Amino acid sequence: MNTNKALQILLFTFIFGLISSCNSKKDSEIVIAPEPETGIADPLSSWHDNATKKAITSYVTEVSTSGNPNFIPISDRIATFDNDGTLWSEQPVYFQLFFAMYRIKALAPEHPEWKNKQPFKAVLENDMKALMASGEKGLLELVMASHSGMTAEEFEDLVKDWLAHETHPRFNKPYNEVIFKPMLELLDYLRANNFKTYIVSGGGVEFMRPWTEETYGIPKDQIIGSSVKTEFTFENGKAQIKRLPQIDFIDDKAGKPVGINKFIGKKPVFAAGNSDGDLQMLQYSASSNYKSFQLYVHHTDADREWAYDRESHIGTFDKGLDYAQENGWTIIDMKNDWKVIYPFETNN
Amino acid sequence: MNTNKALQILLFTFIFGLISSCNSKKDSEIVIAPEPETGIADPLSSWHDNATKKAITSYVTEVSTSGNPNFIPISDRIATFDNDGTLWSEQPVYFQLFFAMYRIKALAPEHPEWKNKQPFKAVLENDMKALMASGEKGLLELVMASHSGMTAEEFEDLVKDWLAHETHPRFNKPYNEVIFKPMLELLDYLRANNFKTYIVSGGGVEFMRPWTEETYGIPKDQIIGSSVKTEFTFENGKAQIKRLPQIDFIDDKAGKPVGINKFIGKKPVFAAGNSDGDLQMLQYSASSNYKSFQLYVHHTDADREWAYDRESHIGTFDKGLDYAQENGWTIIDMKNDWKVIYPFETNN
Repeated sequence: MNTNKALQILLFTFIFGLISSCNSKKDSEIVIAPEPETGIADPLSSWHDNATKKAITSYVTEVSTSGNPNFIPISDRIATFDNDGTLWSEQPVYFQLFFAMYRIKALAPEHPEWKNKQPFKAVLENDMKALMASGEKGLLELVMASHSGMTAEEFEDLVKDWLAHETHPRFNKPYNEVIFKPMLELLDYLRANNFKTYIVSGGGVEFMRPWTEETYGIPKDQIIGSSVKTEFTFENGKAQIKRLPQIDFIDDKAGKPVGINKFIGKKPVFAAGNSDGDLQMLQYSASSNYKSFQLYVHHTDADREWAYDRESHIGTFDKGLDYAQENGWTIIDMKNDWKVIYPFETNN
Repeated sequence: MNTNKALQILLFTFIFGLISSCNSKKDSEIVIAPEPETGIADPLSSWHDNATKKAITSYVTEVSTSGNPNFIPISDRIATFDNDGTLWSEQPVYFQLFFAMYRIKALAPEHPEWKNKQPFKAVLENDMKALMASGEKGLLELVMASHSGMTAEEFEDLVKDWLAHETHPRFNKPYNEVIFKPMLELLDYLRANNFKTYIVSGGGVEFMRPWTEETYGIPKDQIIGSSVKTEFTFENGKAQIKRLPQIDFIDDKAGKPVGINKFIGKKPVFAAGNSDGDLQMLQYSASSNYKSFQLYVHHTDADREWAYDRESHIGTFDKGLDYAQENGWTIIDMKNDWKVIYPFETNN
């Protein structure tokens, strides 16, 4: 299992992300694209009418049309989406790390020793150099201290509490509003054509489940993610699931198809991602016996969102993008394909 | 993890079950109960109109009726069912062991060394003493040799092949017909009332998925079970999931609520089981904030099915039955509650 690699990515994200966040644009600087006036309701109205949109609608129409040689039975219309960078933003750091920091700071009064103990000291003092020095071991300590030691129900409440009280540093919106409106439309459009939509994310499964149904319309049992080990306890007539400080499963890279096979038991025919962590899921989907569709989100909009790929501190993107280009997968150019990025742009 | 315990149970099941199967009743000896003539379609027509049936229908009506103080929103109507002994029979041994034996025998020509190597020799010669002597280690070897070393797709085909070619030794029917008609009706009845039905079984998840949709109307992603580790490979442009000879997860006893939390992310309000392996799932369900229902199948019909509990070679049943009785859970008395056991009784 590539735990070390995943932690390394998390660590770099954590450290460099916090530094780069100082240079972020403000909400007010976002350019709002005008909505076109048409008489027909367009299920993908935030998408420009270009080749990317046409590739999606052509595929969905083809495989949903009875009698078409590429028709797919409804029960096999499985669509899997990465979350970080695919359904919501992942800058300046993965949002789950903001949650971890929030929890460490909230727990600090109960842990006076953290003032003098790395990596907690570094978090409390925003001391990035010291945090970097704590390495992978330090980050694992940070994640475990913030993500385990409570029941599953308590953890769910903590995530909801974070969403209710904290906002994204650039947009000043709750994190679950820093989501891509065109992708919300795509999820709805696929479901309207009887696709079953799943999230398959490197993020924590129990970190996502408290809000994914309301935010994406995807219920808890269609969320696949990384997890910590848990145990069932039954004490004094009280049944509980307790979260333990041990990694159970890393749902990233080759872990994604493994997770899909474990949780869904079917190969997706539609898969969307944006990084090397999604490449294997997309390859797995491309090996379907049905006509399949691979969608790769390329972050090209430095003004409205972020522009990054090969050089980003947020993991690696080279292999995924190269493979997508070489294999003719559909690549979303955020800047040129999306009229709107975030739902709050059109609400203001 | 209670891997050793689970293997021990499997081993005892395997050994004693094969011996006791010699005393099984024949299909023709089954007593077929007459169907009552009523003008109203009864969704639970294979159930006698007694307290057990009334407890089920009262509960379902109560929690499905808008305005009732115990009303449960549709999205939280989660129903989990054990499989072995709850939805299908588990005698003379867990059916998955018949599959393992079938595979070992099919693979034997490629493994001439098995003729002289335990525990394979024992299987090939039906030598139960020698099989017993091979112990837990032997059984694990047997399971791994029959359940790993192939792709997920190949394994699915092997399970389908077994169902198509092998029949139950007592009833001479494919194994997925040796299922409980009253429970099929209950699954349908719950779904008609917008419950989402899941299987949560100690059996292998990939052993169940090839046939559960057709047999129970439960799709692959609503099947939770034990699993072996898998790995994703991508070689020469070919994406595959390969099954490895290592236990990944034992979905039994305290593993059941852990599996439910991992795969569903919600607590069941309705749970059905028949052994100590189901007790924790039922306790977990009983801890729901909603009004919940626990159903315990008691095998009391030696003529039409089997009668066993405390003394059976098939695992342990004491704790579950005692706890069910002490806590007023609904206990199915197969002999007196079910007019029909198997669907094929009424087809003949």
